Amino acid sequence: MENTIVYNPTKLHFGKNVTEKLGNSVENYGKTVLLIYGGGSIKQNGIYEQVMRQLNSIGATVYEYSGITPNPVVEDVNAAASLGRHKEVDVILAVGGGSVIDASKIVSITIPVQHSCWDFMTDKAQPERSIPLIAILTLAATGTEMNRFAVVQNNDSKEKLGYGNPLIYPAESFLDPQYTESVPKDYTGYGVVDLTAHCLEAYFGEGDASLSDRFVYAIIREAMKYGVLLLDDLKNYGLREKIMYAATFALNNLTLYGRKSGDWGAHAIGHVLSVLYDVPHGASLSVAYPAWLKLQEDRIPGRITELGMNLFNTHNVDESVFELENFFASLDAPLRLTDLSIRDDKHEEIFKTMVTNGVGGVHHKLSENDYRKLIELMA
Amino acid sequence: MENTIVYNPTKLHFGKNVTEKLGNSVENYGKTVLLIYGGGSIKQNGIYEQVMRQLNSIGATVYEYSGITPNPVVEDVNAAASLGRHKEVDVILAVGGGSVIDASKIVSITIPVQHSCWDFMTDKAQPERSIPLIAILTLAATGTEMNRFAVVQNNDSKEKLGYGNPLIYPAESFLDPQYTESVPKDYTGYGVVDLTAHCLEAYFGEGDASLSDRFVYAIIREAMKYGVLLLDDLKNYGLREKIMYAATFALNNLTLYGRKSGDWGAHAIGHVLSVLYDVPHGASLSVAYPAWLKLQEDRIPGRITELGMNLFNTHNVDESVFELENFFASLDAPLRLTDLSIRDDKHEEIFKTMVTNGVGGVHHKLSENDYRKLIELMA
Repeated sequence: MENTIVYNPTKLHFGKNVTEKLGNSVENYGKTVLLIYGGGSIKQNGIYEQVMRQLNSIGATVYEYSGITPNPVVEDVNAAASLGRHKEVDVILAVGGGSVIDASKIVSITIPVQHSCWDFMTDKAQPERSIPLIAILTLAATGTEMNRFAVVQNNDSKEKLGYGNPLIYPAESFLDPQYTESVPKDYTGYGVVDLTAHCLEAYFGEGDASLSDRFVYAIIREAMKYGVLLLDDLKNYGLREKIMYAATFALNNLTLYGRKSGDWGAHAIGHVLSVLYDVPHGASLSVAYPAWLKLQEDRIPGRITELGMNLFNTHNVDESVFELENFFASLDAPLRLTDLSIRDDKHEEIFKTMVTNGVGGVHHKLSENDYRKLIELMA
Repeated sequence: MENTIVYNPTKLHFGKNVTEKLGNSVENYGKTVLLIYGGGSIKQNGIYEQVMRQLNSIGATVYEYSGITPNPVVEDVNAAASLGRHKEVDVILAVGGGSVIDASKIVSITIPVQHSCWDFMTDKAQPERSIPLIAILTLAATGTEMNRFAVVQNNDSKEKLGYGNPLIYPAESFLDPQYTESVPKDYTGYGVVDLTAHCLEAYFGEGDASLSDRFVYAIIREAMKYGVLLLDDLKNYGLREKIMYAATFALNNLTLYGRKSGDWGAHAIGHVLSVLYDVPHGASLSVAYPAWLKLQEDRIPGRITELGMNLFNTHNVDESVFELENFFASLDAPLRLTDLSIRDDKHEEIFKTMVTNGVGGVHHKLSENDYRKLIELMA
């Protein structure tokens, strides 16, 4: 086990109607609020109204930035930060899924500075402070509601980069599983893939951390048991609750403590598919992860087999990967590029973008030869 | 699942030589320090010197209160608080096991007031603030280093009461597994019993929380695998590390989220044995827990069997309890009152103290008839 700091300052309010106390929380940080959301679905499903009622009840002044896209982009982050800076907001309220919250996290460190957020993403600049962020999550998947990570995309440079900094932990998060009941079947499945992939990235990271491994098994078993049931019963509160809760713990540090790092190689592959073809994040991972495991089968057979034993009661690499694919398939998630209508003529473009992005894991590096193999395995 | 707040503000530094950065942490809170410890073993094993070197390096003024006993008592808490109040300390530094840290947590809320700490323990008064507490743990067992609970004993009233309040989370904790290498075999085993019992108290609490159940299994499996190995290899850093880490997670809220409460009935029984006969906490639990499970076998057979299936691959209540006893026995922990040299002539005294203390769980209440049965089952 590596020396580790067990720490997560986010206060997460979980359960039915938790946002009824949102006003009290916001007020702790101030009354000038930057409200950030996506395409406006929160206006259809009533969440916007509930949030505004809470903000009005404390007499807050609210500035809105809407239109954050899935796979959020630099331009939106900079524009929202510019609004927040100009209006001198006390607190950011992010309402949405992983994209909205990720974007808002980077907004929270960009408001206090004059340069583009991309300077942070590329480590050209270091943030010194952040505006407090309260997140209201409407989609169970990324775990961003309780961690220090965010992903932003740069369409000019065709890069999708992850960023981590303790300054971007949300101060508080509100998770009402009811808010996820309107998430359609496909995205619900992708969310379960995503939380599973987060556990796997920790598991395949560097360093022996046996209890963290056991937490990985616990969370993936939960996803296996209830994720599949949920796909056939999308309005079931109890199942929404279990998946939303599991998704938070899949990436709130619990599975990472005691390791030098997670790996994130399969995520890097998935990001290439997202940036090129706007593939939903979870759908990119159900394609990328099995291929990544097959690539690694001769390199870390023991580790893959141990995972399979604990999740599927399988006893070799092939069976383990096969069962993981079965699990993803049972979530109606794509397994191959062709399932995403990405044909052979795109392979060279994928390869080149992998090279540009320097795709690889923190622990398991990938060569250009590996890229070729991965594309073949995903085809 | 119950609505829940996932939150734990303690920053826990875990690993080899982590106290080398203790000075930096103390300095964040101030330079007037109340150092609290136990019987002075930290002066023999070099920990005291290491701590003082850190405090000297930041020019701290240090007031010492030593002599905290196992099963810490009201008188010590009040006296230490009085010293801290008089010297207007900025920060408390607790160096020791669960007793020292528990006592220091109650000291941290008693310094700002003029009354006895017992008024807090008995809910006659509510604390409004606390002095920041930094804990250095020297014994893996109670989990107090990362939670909001403390237990203090009142020898006058023969009561041992638990207390919970978010104000008593340690601000920071330092856990160097090397510090536990000198813990003798018996107390090492009791520590493993204790962490297991903490998981069980959560598991038998009120409310369905499937992922928290899985975390319970994960932690107990870790204890089963490495606890027994450790008993035969007390100086093994890797094993000390695994048990110390597991003990923190056994009671840092992780297993409790989503439940209305834990139970704590078996703990209440154990506390009676400790208060009457000075039985070490873990040793009282290896006697109390199997008896408690046998008492409950007709009341919650499904729940006990589910636990057994997940931990021991057993399929009924009797086998499950038998295997738990085997596990405790493999830790050289006592299973019956006679193993503690407590004979039949004490049964009435135990019964009366159970009545005085109102022994029972938060979820599973116990009657006086149950007390009689429990004593018989423990005999």
